[in-house]
Amino acid sequence: MNQTPREARDRDERGWRPRTEQLRDRVLTAAGELMFEGGLATATMEAIAARAGVSKRTLYKYWPSRGAVALEGFMRSAASSWSLPDDASATESLTVLVVGAARLFAGTPAGSLMRSLVADAQSQDEVATAIREQWLRPRRVVAADLIRRGVAEGEFRADIDIEITLDLLFAPVYYRLLLGHEPITDAFAAAAVEHLVAGLRR
Amino acid sequence: MNQTPREARDRDERGWRPRTEQLRDRVLTAAGELMFEGGLATATMEAIAARAGVSKRTLYKYWPSRGAVALEGFMRSAASSWSLPDDASATESLTVLVVGAARLFAGTPAGSLMRSLVADAQSQDEVATAIREQWLRPRRVVAADLIRRGVAEGEFRADIDIEITLDLLFAPVYYRLLLGHEPITDAFAAAAVEHLVAGLRR
Repeated sequence: MNQTPREARDRDERGWRPRTEQLRDRVLTAAGELMFEGGLATATMEAIAARAGVSKRTLYKYWPSRGAVALEGFMRSAASSWSLPDDASATESLTVLVVGAARLFAGTPAGSLMRSLVADAQSQDEVATAIREQWLRPRRVVAADLIRRGVAEGEFRADIDIEITLDLLFAPVYYRLLLGHEPITDAFAAAAVEHLVAGLRR
Repeated sequence: MNQTPREARDRDERGWRPRTEQLRDRVLTAAGELMFEGGLATATMEAIAARAGVSKRTLYKYWPSRGAVALEGFMRSAASSWSLPDDASATESLTVLVVGAARLFAGTPAGSLMRSLVADAQSQDEVATAIREQWLRPRRVVAADLIRRGVAEGEFRADIDIEITLDLLFAPVYYRLLLGHEPITDAFAAAAVEHLVAGLRR
């Protein structure tokens, strides 16, 4: 396909041109709404296309699978759960992240949605990949930056393992969500980070 | 039903008399084998009864549900994963517990079995209850005792929250098992405990 320099410059790395951003917004909003309404079973390509007012063909042009578009929509709908304070310490910011996840799972339909997604992920690789790429990774990237900042500023020990720390940080919320042995509360999430950070502080 | 004092004394708190212990062993062995062979889908009441050489009616006499007997059999089959050293520190013993869980999930069919059980647990309360009662709770009781011993002997801080610590201890293995973002290795499990304990040490 021929492109003028102008057109090429207007594309971002995902291949979206500015004038298709509106379409993308409509699709992701529709997907996010449908996910919150009834989970992955409700967010079919047909339903997303119908609500967004686009063709299924258009959806498949930009997303490889239903899992990908549904999860991206879900993630965007839930993104407000991790807006971070500007001048907070790394510990405070990590607490905001984890308490945010706890509130999202305990206080919105995202909790039962994530439960059903993780259940599906055990037998459907496409769902597992979508959760990791669309949901876990962006949060882990943000948290890893915070941990590195904490190390750089002397708040955390320099010899901590970032990946292990990320697991210890996020795992307890998912563990309670999926095993249900204890409730997910703000106090639990904050205490988990506190217990963890006591081992990270220099 | 009338009981002689002798019969009553011979029952343990579950209502098992010594002469039914053999039957119980056979049933749990059969259930454990079937669980390792094909998970909950394979360990039906019919299959367990047939392999153990008992009637389904006998099974229902002693266990409330398929989930209960299948999980108890699975738990017993996997029990060797948490035999603990006698003279170890609390930290060493907790490491043995968590590395044992990691090996069990990464190196035996118990990993994919637990994945399918947790998936089922998201929509079947009976399975969720069985996992919590038959699998999580016994391990949490053992680990809680170790943590309390660590506190009593001055190895851990006195003000740690036992439940939170249990979650931080076990959650990372389940998080990697169910989300699959990183592999479950011995080194990972040991490092997770090490990172956690660094925050517990006095």
